[in-house]
Amino acid sequence: MAERLDPWGTLEVKDYDRLRRVFGIRPFQEVIPKLREAGFEPSLHMRRGILFGHRDFDKVVLEGLRSGGRVAVLTGFMPSGRFHFGHKLTADQLIYYQRTLGLKVFVAIADAEAFAVRRIPRREAVRIGVEEYIANLIALGLDPDETEFYFQTNRGAPYYRLIQLASGRVTAAEMEAIYGDLAPAKVVSALTQVADILHPQLEEYGGYTGVLVPVGVDQDPHLRLTRDIVDRLSGVVRLTRPASTYHKLIRGLDGGKMSSSRPDYTIFLTDPPEVARRKLMRALTGGRATAEEQRRLGGVPEACTVYDLYLYHLVPDDEELARIYRDCRSGALLCGECKRMAAERLLEFLEAHQSKLEEARETAWSLVEPPSF
Amino acid sequence: MAERLDPWGTLEVKDYDRLRRVFGIRPFQEVIPKLREAGFEPSLHMRRGILFGHRDFDKVVLEGLRSGGRVAVLTGFMPSGRFHFGHKLTADQLIYYQRTLGLKVFVAIADAEAFAVRRIPRREAVRIGVEEYIANLIALGLDPDETEFYFQTNRGAPYYRLIQLASGRVTAAEMEAIYGDLAPAKVVSALTQVADILHPQLEEYGGYTGVLVPVGVDQDPHLRLTRDIVDRLSGVVRLTRPASTYHKLIRGLDGGKMSSSRPDYTIFLTDPPEVARRKLMRALTGGRATAEEQRRLGGVPEACTVYDLYLYHLVPDDEELARIYRDCRSGALLCGECKRMAAERLLEFLEAHQSKLEEARETAWSLVEPPSF
Repeated sequence: MAERLDPWGTLEVKDYDRLRRVFGIRPFQEVIPKLREAGFEPSLHMRRGILFGHRDFDKVVLEGLRSGGRVAVLTGFMPSGRFHFGHKLTADQLIYYQRTLGLKVFVAIADAEAFAVRRIPRREAVRIGVEEYIANLIALGLDPDETEFYFQTNRGAPYYRLIQLASGRVTAAEMEAIYGDLAPAKVVSALTQVADILHPQLEEYGGYTGVLVPVGVDQDPHLRLTRDIVDRLSGVVRLTRPASTYHKLIRGLDGGKMSSSRPDYTIFLTDPPEVARRKLMRALTGGRATAEEQRRLGGVPEACTVYDLYLYHLVPDDEELARIYRDCRSGALLCGECKRMAAERLLEFLEAHQSKLEEARETAWSLVEPPSF
Repeated sequence: MAERLDPWGTLEVKDYDRLRRVFGIRPFQEVIPKLREAGFEPSLHMRRGILFGHRDFDKVVLEGLRSGGRVAVLTGFMPSGRFHFGHKLTADQLIYYQRTLGLKVFVAIADAEAFAVRRIPRREAVRIGVEEYIANLIALGLDPDETEFYFQTNRGAPYYRLIQLASGRVTAAEMEAIYGDLAPAKVVSALTQVADILHPQLEEYGGYTGVLVPVGVDQDPHLRLTRDIVDRLSGVVRLTRPASTYHKLIRGLDGGKMSSSRPDYTIFLTDPPEVARRKLMRALTGGRATAEEQRRLGGVPEACTVYDLYLYHLVPDDEELARIYRDCRSGALLCGECKRMAAERLLEFLEAHQSKLEEARETAWSLVEPPSF
């Protein structure tokens, strides 16, 4: 019961714990005291357990910084849809690492993967990569001067050399076990992600001593593959296993997956405010069948997709979030009122964010060198 | 019988014809008159039917030259052993195309493949690529000023982009049908070969209007794959299907495969003359059980690996070769004498060739930019 009453928890917390244990991922909470000892305040996602697991965060990031190393954080976005609140979860982590820990940020636009796996033409992938992903990241506060954005299709020879090297250090059986498929497009995409993760360590890209990769737990196969390949390339090229952190996934507004392909249940950061409000007002909550029943039994914030938005994005203040949680649980706060409150915060955020987007788009185009074909 | 009496034929000619028909390869002899019409003398390999098949040689090469296009010829060498008379067969073709047809020559050193498939370390692959392959090509007469030598591991972004694009246009089933295997190393190597063949057409590498690839018939799967990928990339990147020619394979001195891995039966262009002579004197011939029998029945040059050396390399004069053929057939020329004659020619060639090698090695090192790791 204690677990279910955790205001930072969700109904799926047990599944995440199971996943974590099955794959040997360490609980993130174990490194929070060390982060504080090193003089860093944990982020909202860390405090709230959204960041629930890690591999080697202490060794690569904390030890790396302590011993004067140069540490990078890297993520990739497939330019295949619009930037939504699921993407913002990753963006907020990058911004935290950039501002608070001073890590160098690398952002891969996975246009090679978009073409190979989803047949998205180059021009379209470049446009989406720049105008949706890079622009929204900048508008959210990622400092473009301290970030390296790049296209997978235009990253230079040493990066591609890693793909070639990696291809010789993994078997078909391993690929198939991880991805269930041996389509050449998937094999090459998987090896390209390995190169994404590892290349900041190469001299040509800055020679970083360690790389942190924040992902959803569904991306862990890529990290495990990369770690194995690092070991197998020992003696060929000197690399350190990447660190990784694992976050819980924010749900769509029907409780299912939040995804560009489900636009009715996904709030995009470029949604016109009225569109976003309409989606939110129809969202699945943890409310009861009737108002009377809800006043009597209280709501279930863990089951509520509006509460997800508070938890992940809209209520940065922990005490305020705890108050909302208690008021829902006690039956004092009903869903209609709660949704209006959420919509107000959401629209305030969207309007402020969108006012920065045009300039961010211009900046974004100035930063990248798209591939020639 | 007529076929077996052809001084340019070998015992396997029927197999080559069958292979040609099965895979839809056209007979090369059909383009020889067109080559002459265009003002070019056919090469020794063309005249003698060693070059027995082609795809699109007329369309890509002859039409290309006629309409003022820029045509390239490309081949790749895996830096995994020593340069032998099998490699010389390809080298001679490159030199002919360079001198007689004025084609631009590209030579890929397949160091990525060597690492991925045979685990040959980089330094070793670079050394072998430069000192064995590039140096021998130059010493044989390939003009280094009109040739582009490159490493697969250091060819720049547009080349790698072709690998990425190709990966999205081929299925696992097709790869497996062609190569019998889906090891990631093989998949990436196969797609890298596709990029080798196609990249001279890209603006960044000269924008050649057509590319010719001279291969042994065992390499045809790579050409078929490349042709299919060209078709499937239509609308993404404008490419023309490569032309290809197919040569018969010279046999090793025991009648088996000529290969670096069978050094006793393979003459290397860097063999000390006395080593080469010893190998030659032990070679399998088409001789009879006794000298008496051979004087009576004649020898079988088609079964003779020494005759192979004459046919492919050591006797450029057709009339002289026909005389040797007749004298063997008639029983006038016995194997002992014939081998001594072959050894004399071989040693003369090797000594002249090896006297150019040191300077060619220096030139070779000055031409290439090896990868950084």
